[in-house]
Amino acid sequence: MGTYAEASTPELKAELDTLNKAYTEFKAKGLSLNMARGKPSPEQLELAKPLLDCVNSTTDVSAYTKADVFNYGGLDGIPEAKALMAQMMDVPAENVIVCGNASLNIMYDMVSRAMTHGVLNQKPWCQAGPVKFLCPVPGYDRHFAITEHFGIMMVNIPLREDGPDMDLVEQIVAEDNTVKGIWCVPKYANPSGVCYSDEVVARLGALKPAAPDFRIYWDNAYTVHHLDPAHPVKIASIKTACEEGGNPNMWYEFASTSKISFAGAGIAAIAASDANIEDINRQMAFQTIGYDKINQLRHVVFFKDLDGINAHMAKHAAILAPKFAKVRETLDAELTPTGVGKWTDPKGGYFITFTGMPGTAKRIVELAAGAGVKMTGAGAPFPYKKDPEDNVIRIAPSYPSLDELSQACALFCLCVKIASIEKIIATH
Amino acid sequence: MGTYAEASTPELKAELDTLNKAYTEFKAKGLSLNMARGKPSPEQLELAKPLLDCVNSTTDVSAYTKADVFNYGGLDGIPEAKALMAQMMDVPAENVIVCGNASLNIMYDMVSRAMTHGVLNQKPWCQAGPVKFLCPVPGYDRHFAITEHFGIMMVNIPLREDGPDMDLVEQIVAEDNTVKGIWCVPKYANPSGVCYSDEVVARLGALKPAAPDFRIYWDNAYTVHHLDPAHPVKIASIKTACEEGGNPNMWYEFASTSKISFAGAGIAAIAASDANIEDINRQMAFQTIGYDKINQLRHVVFFKDLDGINAHMAKHAAILAPKFAKVRETLDAELTPTGVGKWTDPKGGYFITFTGMPGTAKRIVELAAGAGVKMTGAGAPFPYKKDPEDNVIRIAPSYPSLDELSQACALFCLCVKIASIEKIIATH
Repeated sequence: MGTYAEASTPELKAELDTLNKAYTEFKAKGLSLNMARGKPSPEQLELAKPLLDCVNSTTDVSAYTKADVFNYGGLDGIPEAKALMAQMMDVPAENVIVCGNASLNIMYDMVSRAMTHGVLNQKPWCQAGPVKFLCPVPGYDRHFAITEHFGIMMVNIPLREDGPDMDLVEQIVAEDNTVKGIWCVPKYANPSGVCYSDEVVARLGALKPAAPDFRIYWDNAYTVHHLDPAHPVKIASIKTACEEGGNPNMWYEFASTSKISFAGAGIAAIAASDANIEDINRQMAFQTIGYDKINQLRHVVFFKDLDGINAHMAKHAAILAPKFAKVRETLDAELTPTGVGKWTDPKGGYFITFTGMPGTAKRIVELAAGAGVKMTGAGAPFPYKKDPEDNVIRIAPSYPSLDELSQACALFCLCVKIASIEKIIATH
Repeated sequence: MGTYAEASTPELKAELDTLNKAYTEFKAKGLSLNMARGKPSPEQLELAKPLLDCVNSTTDVSAYTKADVFNYGGLDGIPEAKALMAQMMDVPAENVIVCGNASLNIMYDMVSRAMTHGVLNQKPWCQAGPVKFLCPVPGYDRHFAITEHFGIMMVNIPLREDGPDMDLVEQIVAEDNTVKGIWCVPKYANPSGVCYSDEVVARLGALKPAAPDFRIYWDNAYTVHHLDPAHPVKIASIKTACEEGGNPNMWYEFASTSKISFAGAGIAAIAASDANIEDINRQMAFQTIGYDKINQLRHVVFFKDLDGINAHMAKHAAILAPKFAKVRETLDAELTPTGVGKWTDPKGGYFITFTGMPGTAKRIVELAAGAGVKMTGAGAPFPYKKDPEDNVIRIAPSYPSLDELSQACALFCLCVKIASIEKIIATH
């Protein structure tokens, strides 16, 4: 049999019978695998275990910092942690605040504060009537969850190979003063793997927003997460782009070590302009006396600097790259002959995006779940969980072992085939 | 000379000259001491250093918990940390959420969420018009800062020996449906040292609030912070009181180990009813995937249970009790003969409250600062920093060494004397 598009209905029906038998056999295996979330694998986490020893009961802390890491204080983080995160985020240390264990929490707080207190002396959004965010799609489900939670209307923006559709972004941002933000994962994007081109970054920095409190929410979550450390992708600085575009305060950058040290016990940071940093610190002072400085110091002692982080991430890449290759190989082998679907070849990050026939994503995820493989929910990479084509599925290869991944991908391909043939037959 | 009240103006003027000379001598010492904040001393923090070794690179974590503390997940905390904090807070573990490093942050988040999303299906406060909180005074400045930050009107409630003036609280809460909360530090209160009586707790639990989203913000910050561990004060359970009073959802309890393990690197928790906990978890899921579970585990391994915490806190008491005694002794010796002021004799917590002559607190703090001793700002223990009588000063004896404390207290007494005589002369 050739591609499904060329096959006759009887051929497809016969093929579907065969596939369904294989599916039943898979089901009998009683698998319980998960390709749903971008979780580091136990092997990756193991690499960071020595970090736990970096600040112990005998450590001479004064050799590393003048900060009193055991007591209160230090709202914006210890200077050495600010310097470390600043290197990683490619901004000056004075433009960084190091917070707790999750950049998600910082993003949430930034939106929450904007709702109740406004952005840099502008009116609080909760008093400003409807507020909108631009959402390049497919994108990160937890971004969209935050904006939806706060009742912010989300506007889909097509994400191209080099970043968001800038013609559209420029037009909307200039015309609509209720548009207050755009969610961006500029490098190895979740889930597409897209890296924003220099031109896109420059155009973002040069936006002429109608709203003075419009901000670019630059979630640089995967900045050091290369799959091929010898050929890391470099993207342009959003800080520089905004400054050169005459919008020095228009950006917030977020990053964390959640997928570098420990997911859930890393350190997270926000970078922003001087004026924004001052405003954020002023507001943060009501919320906390300071974040966990001991954990900040652990990271400083363990990683030392960006070189240390990069060396560590090369070890991650050695674990992750074969997993990404396995997914691609399986999809290439199983699906290319059918002519169904396409899938990304990311150079970093945590995800492969599969795009299937319209109207099949939910069915594929349902079939996979039925045989014990949990995928990210269909629709998740879209605002309101609504995939307009119902054809995008986020694949997260990081957590399962290579063996588990082989099985999970084989099943996934089977489910794609079944759902696709079902769809074709139904429309014949 | 007898008491200042009995002295003649010439006697007082002569005494003021002598005092001013002594003050000038003090100034020449170039002291730089701090009795402003309730910070643990280095000696107390030292006691917790072995906690840092409790989870190291060789620890068999599975011996302590089934939770994967190194990866994502566990929104409400690892079960063992919930159990530990539940023991300390005297509530069932299922009514506890363990969060990050600061109960202040949890309190801020609770108020912030109430503003934007409302409390248990009630209207968000930001849409509900003016909102009020009752503030027993003197109280904790950071509580008042949060409510002020969110534009919540604060109503002073006199704090008596056994807790807030309940006649007033009952009346206001029943009559005014814009009253949405009351800040309480029920044990060894900041700064008064007051412990709420069983009757007060019962009356709080039996309130008949006009607002269905009225909550008691029960900041049990000092529950195990006894100065005499052989005679710990016990207070009634706010959970039980609210249940017996027919208000099972009316309480939120907050606690942390900030003044047990490390200030800034402890763990913090909120306890609440089943319905509240479900609602908080639902909302928290937008904010974070989970807090630092490794640090939660450190605390579990180090303290084991409430007995472990109590044993540790007895060591704190051995350090703190002599400091509190020193302050009292100095004030007794220096100020009792003058007939000026009174000061509390707390059985736990972090503060002594000094009440001087009306209209002298700001001057005393100013004088102390002028000679190198930083006190908590006059007015700080009151909403909007407005002490109606300008006569309350919070003394924080925990951080300085005994020697430093001797000097600081001697200077403080000198400043009280100067400010008081100045006041008396000015009103003669």
